[in-house]
Amino acid sequence: MPSKLIEGAAIIGQSGGPTAVINQSLVGVVEGLKGKLPVKKIYGMRHGVDGLIKGLPLVDLTSLSQDTLERIAKTPSAALGSSRAKPTEADGPKIFEACRANDIRYFFYIGGNDSSDTCRIVHDLGLKHNYELRCFHVPKTVDNDLMGNDHTPGYASAARYVAMAFMSDDRDNASLPGIKINVIMGRHAGFLTAASALARREDGDGPHLIYLPEVPFDTDKFIDDIRAVVAKHNRCQIAVSEGIKDKDGVEIGAKLIAGDKDAHGNVQLSGSGALGDMLANLVKDKLKSPSGKPPRVRADTLGYLQRCWPEPSSVDAHEARQVGIKAAQEAMTGAQSGSVAIIRMSNHPYRIEKRLIPLTDVAAKTRHLPPEYIKGHADVSPAFIEYARPLVGELPQMAKLI
Amino acid sequence: MPSKLIEGAAIIGQSGGPTAVINQSLVGVVEGLKGKLPVKKIYGMRHGVDGLIKGLPLVDLTSLSQDTLERIAKTPSAALGSSRAKPTEADGPKIFEACRANDIRYFFYIGGNDSSDTCRIVHDLGLKHNYELRCFHVPKTVDNDLMGNDHTPGYASAARYVAMAFMSDDRDNASLPGIKINVIMGRHAGFLTAASALARREDGDGPHLIYLPEVPFDTDKFIDDIRAVVAKHNRCQIAVSEGIKDKDGVEIGAKLIAGDKDAHGNVQLSGSGALGDMLANLVKDKLKSPSGKPPRVRADTLGYLQRCWPEPSSVDAHEARQVGIKAAQEAMTGAQSGSVAIIRMSNHPYRIEKRLIPLTDVAAKTRHLPPEYIKGHADVSPAFIEYARPLVGELPQMAKLI
Repeated sequence: MPSKLIEGAAIIGQSGGPTAVINQSLVGVVEGLKGKLPVKKIYGMRHGVDGLIKGLPLVDLTSLSQDTLERIAKTPSAALGSSRAKPTEADGPKIFEACRANDIRYFFYIGGNDSSDTCRIVHDLGLKHNYELRCFHVPKTVDNDLMGNDHTPGYASAARYVAMAFMSDDRDNASLPGIKINVIMGRHAGFLTAASALARREDGDGPHLIYLPEVPFDTDKFIDDIRAVVAKHNRCQIAVSEGIKDKDGVEIGAKLIAGDKDAHGNVQLSGSGALGDMLANLVKDKLKSPSGKPPRVRADTLGYLQRCWPEPSSVDAHEARQVGIKAAQEAMTGAQSGSVAIIRMSNHPYRIEKRLIPLTDVAAKTRHLPPEYIKGHADVSPAFIEYARPLVGELPQMAKLI
Repeated sequence: MPSKLIEGAAIIGQSGGPTAVINQSLVGVVEGLKGKLPVKKIYGMRHGVDGLIKGLPLVDLTSLSQDTLERIAKTPSAALGSSRAKPTEADGPKIFEACRANDIRYFFYIGGNDSSDTCRIVHDLGLKHNYELRCFHVPKTVDNDLMGNDHTPGYASAARYVAMAFMSDDRDNASLPGIKINVIMGRHAGFLTAASALARREDGDGPHLIYLPEVPFDTDKFIDDIRAVVAKHNRCQIAVSEGIKDKDGVEIGAKLIAGDKDAHGNVQLSGSGALGDMLANLVKDKLKSPSGKPPRVRADTLGYLQRCWPEPSSVDAHEARQVGIKAAQEAMTGAQSGSVAIIRMSNHPYRIEKRLIPLTDVAAKTRHLPPEYIKGHADVSPAFIEYARPLVGELPQMAKLI
């Protein structure tokens, strides 16, 4: 055992909105730690740091069989339970009481930007409480909004689901023509909404319009856009981010929803059809015929299945496992803290590297869809397609007769 | 060529809400007709009988390669376009003008109960107009509500999607506990909502409550039910049919939606999140804590992906092809008209037969979830699980740590 290592148990937590592959990362950390000398026990937190604060019993992961680990890895959503709690100064003593009681010296936290902030807070509290705890953040978020990362585990599977949804729904819309609005997850970053564009194969394929949270949403333009698409294709399939904002930066959806807020101050936008229904009613009203008949307009809000559909992108499943292993390896070679980041080395062939970056590079920061991935006010650029295509795996082929 | 056959072209139409496997049936009819002597041409209607009435050009399917046919078969939604039109007496001349112009003598219509009624109407109009047209209905509907059928092509794939959605969403709900409402398609018949129960593997798995259109919905009972489940499991996953009705038979969802109606008088319930949102708000209000804090409640309306998700049940894909072939075979051995029905011969091993039954046995009739498949006021029976399990194919395995 290298002298810079400290002997003690490791603990792993999962946090924030779960994904289809967050358990791959959990299993990756366990695999990376198993049989390593300084770590004799590997524990799981129940419902993230919240479980530690509340003193919930730990889950012993030390002796799980490879078969069990593989079954866990393939199961969507956080197998240890998740949490949206953010520890405060007052939580410090409770956290370190649990750590001391179980001789925990390695802390792994799998989550998004809020979770990496939690990881940073726990790390800083450790310094303050004079308790040596090495803290590692393992990236995860369908929003793909972590700084310092080319992309984040969980995103590619959600993007695959969205692309497949738009391909299928586009065929549905072509068979019974109308205006179809699909509302996509992604509060602040448009990466997941943008992934709808991967559904296109031929001229005329939907989505015909894509509204991102990075581009101010204007209802008059929205109606004009639809009118133009319908004139050309006799139908219109539309991708709308749940986080679209007006020119003053006010979220259109948040205005409609008598909002829950989590400990990080985030308004709940998913789990409601209000935005889609409001937009559908607007279109029905504005595009009705001279006789007053509304066009056929439907809205679907894709909802939680985007993040938990059990058939992930194979690229994503693999990478999620690898970032977990990488975090464990960094801990076992003496790193004190950090966040694992995915860097793309080449696109043809697609190749990534995993690196440990400072927690403060990621914590509580939000990455947005960069301007070069946006085309006009209602589309994505070819550069985005180049970026996203290698992540989602092979998509189904669809054929047409009319 | 048997003397009872008539020489002439065949035409195939697709109608009603599309499914993931309706193109399998289309390809099945083409396969069953190809190279058969009395049928020199095989045409497709654009957007069902509506295309014939409007004089839209026919689609020539006669010489499609097997490769093209296979790609079409695997594509979800109606490749010829669909329609919800119902022909009237006045449409008769236009329909038979198109038939005469193309020497059409065999009419195949793939659809649900409204579509079988259209098939019957066209058949009767043929007799009236003294035009010999042999009319065959090929079953299709995710609602599974055709009389005379054990089940209908399209249902099993939608049921598979719903079961996988509930399995995944149940893991999501377990990781961030709360009350989760998922609204399922099926206006009058609860078969698809019932399929959510296939997601259960172990005690405590969701869905914990299932509300079917066949059982009067009582909001007080609904709240009491949820309270009891939350007391036991600290969370609650709920399946609600879009067609739930109050004790007077009034649809709860229809009351909320400023409704479109189709030519068959059906109110549009899909393509809106209103019912789920209303129920979620009701639960938040009724189950708030003494301090006024609402519980975590989310609602997803599964929407059109239920009927068009591009990974169908393999059983369903196979059977959808077979009913198309069967319709063609019946036509080619001299039948005058009829609807292909699926009869289950045995459950262990699962085995079906296809039979031609009179159009009037199916047309415009609705089959409901039989009482023996319903348990209490918010669940399905083990008999339903026995019935549905063989249809959906293998479901993913999911593992738990807590």
